[in-house]
Amino acid sequence: MTKRIDFQTDPSQYRHWRVEYDGPIANLFMDVDEDGGLFDGYQLKLNSYDLGVDIELADVVQRMRFEHPEVKVVVMQSAKDKVFCAGANIRMLGGAAHSHKVNFCKFTNETRNTYEAALADSGQNYICAIKGACAGGGYELALACNHIMLTDDSTSSVSLPEVPLLAVLPGTGGLTRVTDKRKMRRDLADVFCSVEEGVKGKRAVQWRLVDEIFPNSKFDDAVKERASDLAARSTKIEAAKGIALAPLQREFSDDAVTYSTVEVTFDRAAGRTRVLIKGPDGEAPADMAAFEELGDQAWILRCARELDDALLHLRLNEMELGLVEFQTQGDGAAVVAHEALMLDNADHWLANEVLKYWKRVLKRVDLTSRSLVALVEHGSCFAGPLAELLWAVDRSYMMLDEFDGDNRPTAAIALSAGNFGTYPMGNDLTRLQTRFLGTPEAVDAAHERIGAALEGQDAEDLGLVTFAYDDIDWDDEVRLFIEERASFSPDAMTGMEANLRFAGPETMETRIFGRLTAWQNWIFQRPNAVGEDGALQRYGTGVRGKYNMERV
Amino acid sequence: MTKRIDFQTDPSQYRHWRVEYDGPIANLFMDVDEDGGLFDGYQLKLNSYDLGVDIELADVVQRMRFEHPEVKVVVMQSAKDKVFCAGANIRMLGGAAHSHKVNFCKFTNETRNTYEAALADSGQNYICAIKGACAGGGYELALACNHIMLTDDSTSSVSLPEVPLLAVLPGTGGLTRVTDKRKMRRDLADVFCSVEEGVKGKRAVQWRLVDEIFPNSKFDDAVKERASDLAARSTKIEAAKGIALAPLQREFSDDAVTYSTVEVTFDRAAGRTRVLIKGPDGEAPADMAAFEELGDQAWILRCARELDDALLHLRLNEMELGLVEFQTQGDGAAVVAHEALMLDNADHWLANEVLKYWKRVLKRVDLTSRSLVALVEHGSCFAGPLAELLWAVDRSYMMLDEFDGDNRPTAAIALSAGNFGTYPMGNDLTRLQTRFLGTPEAVDAAHERIGAALEGQDAEDLGLVTFAYDDIDWDDEVRLFIEERASFSPDAMTGMEANLRFAGPETMETRIFGRLTAWQNWIFQRPNAVGEDGALQRYGTGVRGKYNMERV
Repeated sequence: MTKRIDFQTDPSQYRHWRVEYDGPIANLFMDVDEDGGLFDGYQLKLNSYDLGVDIELADVVQRMRFEHPEVKVVVMQSAKDKVFCAGANIRMLGGAAHSHKVNFCKFTNETRNTYEAALADSGQNYICAIKGACAGGGYELALACNHIMLTDDSTSSVSLPEVPLLAVLPGTGGLTRVTDKRKMRRDLADVFCSVEEGVKGKRAVQWRLVDEIFPNSKFDDAVKERASDLAARSTKIEAAKGIALAPLQREFSDDAVTYSTVEVTFDRAAGRTRVLIKGPDGEAPADMAAFEELGDQAWILRCARELDDALLHLRLNEMELGLVEFQTQGDGAAVVAHEALMLDNADHWLANEVLKYWKRVLKRVDLTSRSLVALVEHGSCFAGPLAELLWAVDRSYMMLDEFDGDNRPTAAIALSAGNFGTYPMGNDLTRLQTRFLGTPEAVDAAHERIGAALEGQDAEDLGLVTFAYDDIDWDDEVRLFIEERASFSPDAMTGMEANLRFAGPETMETRIFGRLTAWQNWIFQRPNAVGEDGALQRYGTGVRGKYNMERV
Repeated sequence: MTKRIDFQTDPSQYRHWRVEYDGPIANLFMDVDEDGGLFDGYQLKLNSYDLGVDIELADVVQRMRFEHPEVKVVVMQSAKDKVFCAGANIRMLGGAAHSHKVNFCKFTNETRNTYEAALADSGQNYICAIKGACAGGGYELALACNHIMLTDDSTSSVSLPEVPLLAVLPGTGGLTRVTDKRKMRRDLADVFCSVEEGVKGKRAVQWRLVDEIFPNSKFDDAVKERASDLAARSTKIEAAKGIALAPLQREFSDDAVTYSTVEVTFDRAAGRTRVLIKGPDGEAPADMAAFEELGDQAWILRCARELDDALLHLRLNEMELGLVEFQTQGDGAAVVAHEALMLDNADHWLANEVLKYWKRVLKRVDLTSRSLVALVEHGSCFAGPLAELLWAVDRSYMMLDEFDGDNRPTAAIALSAGNFGTYPMGNDLTRLQTRFLGTPEAVDAAHERIGAALEGQDAEDLGLVTFAYDDIDWDDEVRLFIEERASFSPDAMTGMEANLRFAGPETMETRIFGRLTAWQNWIFQRPNAVGEDGALQRYGTGVRGKYNMERV
């Protein structure tokens, strides 16, 4: 797969989804174009999906938040007869490299999380209206909605047939949401996940798989009524008009991707990449009216969008760059000022959306399977939301005192109120709380220094960076780290990071990415699933997978 | 590996460990016999270990609880000069099948948990006294102790060098205990896990890796003092004399293992095994004096020991038997009476040990990677601790009403107070709480029926079994299930069970078996670790592993 996968799209380019807006209600139709697969070699029949379909869905969800803040209820449904969605396309999965399978699942999981959380974050409530077969990844699309309605007829059912049919797991949150969100009894879940044809009608309600069933003749009206009802009861912040998300300004070259605020450069020989984030080049907008006027050109939103796109580009298109070095450049006080406008107006719909988007982007950093390091150089601006990067990375190095011949402002970190609750990780703790699990008093000590310019020694003493080095040691220490990292097995790094980054409590979200995904990735390596005689290869041939029956 | 692995041992057979008893203090010495490996092809140098070494350790820990209840503090230490323990033997790992690696790690994890929990369960406190190098699995041995002491000299250090040296994880709890138990800062943990030579001296304390350091000259006295101090402050129930754990009565044949209360029969052609547990054949002992007199021959203890051994035998020696059918036979009221003696005397040291042991055995069931089913037939005795099996299994079938020609007593389940808190799962919830996460009122409803003989319809209505079938449907339904299960990929089953069985909250324990183990198992399939040019094969050859640098 040498084709560059692009995560940027917009409604004019959609091939698989469309939205009909009706005041506070949006009807979201899945209508996958069979011939619109991201790669050759498979057809997307029966609303089955590949990464390209999910990239559009992620775009829909994002635009719903920024461009259509008037929407309170989104009704996810199929535009096809007799089928809601057949799940991830099996031929695509069968032909995909291990790394693509893993990254595909990660992105789809992240997308499910965005619309599941839209209710809590912004008061946008996704409900799912199922007519026809809703299988595998299709039911996982539904599970991430907050209310599931099903027609009560002979052809409409929900199912997770991955285990019996494909010898893999319902890995896009399916198993976890069945037990943790729907709180289905585990023995019934065991039965449900073993039955290819799924469950329908009353049993689907009794087993907690769906919330409501209606006969076909009454279904459309019931869905409309439920949507109106939920919209009427919504506590979403009122917003008449959204802001447009214009295409990102990007330039691709052989060894770089350049955005307006983010510059990504590749050192392929050394397997590393630098992500340089540039702080604001002007003062923060005076108020939210001015901010809305700027819209997607406001630094704090532009930067989030660009960083998000850069991360996805690295994940899917530059898989041999194992080390990501975060750097920043600019005025920390300006970063804090731009963030402060948002924090001070957190009850304004757009400020809320911007902050919640930063939360999502920073979670994307947490979940990026690369060794991450922050290099806090002179002239940098790790402050406010950018300071979160210091605790999202695996370790950080900071310049201490003056460096010979370097006349940039001395490296300093600036904490803001935002670092103490605005951007929780998937485990529902802040990055500082997670970092200081063993010494919670260190969070308080950091809190007392909000607003101060914390130079190297201070930052190291407060535990905000791993090491601070002076001019004499800096080059050697950073070089040694980079060389060391390049000598490690990338798989061991992935496993180590998946454990060390998520200390403390678990949530449904961390369980999906930690437990469920890890087991799925293991299965994605097992001959019973992916071997020549494995189930994924044999699917559709009429010959069942041939299994080695040894249990491990 | 056709040799049968035997989990039964006793001090007369030990080759790797010895204990010196000194009143309330036991000194536990690791002194691995280089030539005492469980298999050929490797030498257990530098106190490195294989499964055989761990089987002895598990036996030590178990006997400490039952045979030496006077012990309040156990000091784990090395009998070798300059080395505490070099961790799991790498040649053994390099030569082992995937299934053996996985099962080896699971058993060692379970053993670590038993001595870590001995403090909370029984007031037996394990402390670790480290002189010399303590590396990898060696440090994981220490991490499971509740207090770690290290000599402050140039050769004594703790380390987790798995990632840099072997391209695998510190998977025997290492990564999880570093972040969740020691609550080490994650960036420092990242550094620690990257440094082959580890950390020593003051830094080891500052980084929370050990609790105390002492110069060599003062170390032995400091350890003695700490042990005496902890023993003096212990709140352990006083017990002057333990009971002996005699060798189990077992008979092995080609298609069965027969114990006094447990009968395991194999149907290898169908890939299934039946574990039949026989209830008590007499009344419960009159009181604890009578119980102590019976000692290990008391039904409730004998049954736990035999079931435990049977599970381990199946796991390691019968890996193609993918389906385990639990059955019981006997008088449910008698099971409840035998358990009641323990519950009523839970402050008696031996009753406490028996109940805590049942907790451990039932956790071993939860963690057994086989499809588990309970068949509740007429004449069965799923009651008290045996009723827990109904909710440990993946699903259960119960006979409903009379069966033609079957004159055994009608199938009935009996709940006891023990089912509501005595045997928590790894997630710290009872099996009933986990089962009824979505309907907690169902736990209350079950609680109201303690002591009743709950026949099929009642049991199904209360949600205690998955299905109750009458004479007409029973044979077909059970047969269909068994055939269906045999047609599924064993890997998909393993992954599904690892998710569905552990709904709800996570604990350090569930994170070790769920998250950490799953990532380790994934890595144990990756060429970078286990391929011909992978790190495990190349270890000791002087040639580093050759890695595919793609990140997934």
